[in-house]
Amino acid sequence: MPGTFCGHYYVAVFTAVRTREQSGYSETVARREDLVKDVPGYLGTDYAQIPGGLAITVGYFRDADAVTAWRTDIEHRAAQKRGRAEWYESYTLHIAKVERSHGFTRA
Amino acid sequence: MPGTFCGHYYVAVFTAVRTREQSGYSETVARREDLVKDVPGYLGTDYAQIPGGLAITVGYFRDADAVTAWRTDIEHRAAQKRGRAEWYESYTLHIAKVERSHGFTRA
Repeated sequence: MPGTFCGHYYVAVFTAVRTREQSGYSETVARREDLVKDVPGYLGTDYAQIPGGLAITVGYFRDADAVTAWRTDIEHRAAQKRGRAEWYESYTLHIAKVERSHGFTRA
Repeated sequence: MPGTFCGHYYVAVFTAVRTREQSGYSETVARREDLVKDVPGYLGTDYAQIPGGLAITVGYFRDADAVTAWRTDIEHRAAQKRGRAEWYESYTLHIAKVERSHGFTRA
């Protein structure tokens, strides 16, 4: 995530396995990346995926209100619905309040 | 993660970029996977990595005590130290209390 933040911000941890039906998916992800940047309190995202396997997206948000704003965004909700109908075999979502964090960067 | 849990369990979100120096790393990861299973309250792990890029490991723990037990495990601490000395270019760790979660599996 970009920078360092104080206080009890939130992480939204999304793990997903996708189906073989991926038409429209990459466009929606690109659009999602634009949309989330407009959410007040959005702090950044980390993403990783095993090719053909599990993908993990970690979104960082300043507070619970920011998480709710993103979760209930109308265009995002439509994408969530399409995800369940077409793109995701399974997923889990955990919304969690950060109690402690640290980072390391090689000198 | 395996199964579904009630109550306020914890996630430990570890993101890392590795160096080119990876001797001993894969053996240590295999050992770590064995070790963490012995931590009382350990619930499971999700992992993803962009080849050559960011890796994300999400550990799930029943409570804060379980997280502390894992963080302070002597062999794990030695591995953390070696990680900073050799294997990691950078990393972030967030310990967070889950407030809400849900999952989806295709019918």
